[in-house]
Amino acid sequence: MGTTAIAPWKQLLLNAMQSNSHLKHSSYFQLATIGINGRPANRTVVFRGFQDNTNKIQINTDSRTHKIEDLKQCPFGEVCWYFTDSWEQFRINCVVDVIDGSNPDPIKLQFCENALQQREKAWFASSPRSRLQYVGPYPGLPSISEQSSEESSLDDSTGPVDAFCLLVLNPEQVDYLNLKENKRVNFTARQSNESEKLWNSERINP
Amino acid sequence: MGTTAIAPWKQLLLNAMQSNSHLKHSSYFQLATIGINGRPANRTVVFRGFQDNTNKIQINTDSRTHKIEDLKQCPFGEVCWYFTDSWEQFRINCVVDVIDGSNPDPIKLQFCENALQQREKAWFASSPRSRLQYVGPYPGLPSISEQSSEESSLDDSTGPVDAFCLLVLNPEQVDYLNLKENKRVNFTARQSNESEKLWNSERINP
Repeated sequence: MGTTAIAPWKQLLLNAMQSNSHLKHSSYFQLATIGINGRPANRTVVFRGFQDNTNKIQINTDSRTHKIEDLKQCPFGEVCWYFTDSWEQFRINCVVDVIDGSNPDPIKLQFCENALQQREKAWFASSPRSRLQYVGPYPGLPSISEQSSEESSLDDSTGPVDAFCLLVLNPEQVDYLNLKENKRVNFTARQSNESEKLWNSERINP
Repeated sequence: MGTTAIAPWKQLLLNAMQSNSHLKHSSYFQLATIGINGRPANRTVVFRGFQDNTNKIQINTDSRTHKIEDLKQCPFGEVCWYFTDSWEQFRINCVVDVIDGSNPDPIKLQFCENALQQREKAWFASSPRSRLQYVGPYPGLPSISEQSSEESSLDDSTGPVDAFCLLVLNPEQVDYLNLKENKRVNFTARQSNESEKLWNSERINP
C-alpha cells in the first residue's frame, strides 16, 4: 500500500491516452449517473482535458440534457474509460460540479467566479462547429421538422450561450484494470481537502 | 410514431454489430448500475448474445463482483454501447435478472428451472480458458500473493462453478444515436408482457 500527494492514477491515465492517441475514440468515455427516476443512466462523452494542473476531468455538455437534472439531484458519477488498443480500463468514481451560466450562489461566489471563467475558457477551446450544437434544437425533444443547427450561426467572438455547460469531475476513487498484464489496482482518496488530496493505492485481484 | 411487435431497435443493433465486427472491441459495452452506496457504478462487459429468439441480452459475470450486490438491491441497468467505426450509440435501459447457482425461489420455480438451463448453456458456450477465471482469486480483494488462475484447472465436462453467473438484460427503453447521420430515435416498450412486448419509436433531436 502506498501513499502519495500526487494522484498516482493520473500518470497511468496520461500514458494510456498517449499510447491510444492514434484512435480518435480514445478520448471518449462513458459517464454513468443516477436518473431522476432512480435508474442508472449512461452515455458516451468527450474528454476535454484536466482542469488546470488538477486531477479534475472536464467535459462539455448541453444544459438541456437529462444528465444535468440527474446531477443536480445526485452529484455522483462514474466514468468508465476503456482503451481499446492497450486493453486498459479506468473506472473513476467522482463528484460532479455543474457549471452553467446561472447566477452563482453568493456563498460560493469566489469559487463560482473562477468557475464561470473556466466555462468561458472551455467554450472558446471548443471548435466553432461544435459550439453550434448549443443553439440547435432542444436535445431529446421530438423532432418536429428538418430543422438543422447548420442554419444557425455564431460569431467566433460570441461568448458561451445559455445551453453551454461545463462539467468538472472530481475523482474520489479509481479502479484501474490492465487486461494485458492481468493487473488491477484500486486508488482511493484519503482526504478530500481540495488543495491536496492524498491517495492510497492497493493491488487487488482482477 | 410507429408501433410494432418486433423490437425495431434490435435490427439496428444487429446491423451495427455486423458493420463493426472487424473490431474485437465491438462486442464490449459499458453497463451502469447503482452501487449499494447509492452511487453510480460503471464497467465494461462482453456481449454474449441474445437469449434464444428474444430481445434479451446476455452477459457472463462472477457472482463475487460488486455488480451482483448492486443488482440484487436495484435490478435496473443501463447499457451504453458505442460502435467506434460506424459512430452509433445504443443506450439500453433494462431490468436485469441475476441467474446464479442458488436454489430457485419456489414461486419462480418454472422460470428458474429454465434459467438454470440457460446458465449451464452459457457456461459451456464460454471458452475453457475464460471458465478458469471463475475458480481464480476473489475479484476485488487485495492481492495477497502471486496466485494465478493458471494454476487452477477444470475438466472440460465440468458444469458451471458456484461463482459463474449469467445476467439477462431485459430492455425497456432504447435511445439510438447515429452521429454520421445526425439522427436519434427513442424506442419505448409500451407493455411489459413477456411474451410480446410492444415498442413505440419516436425521432428526437440529437
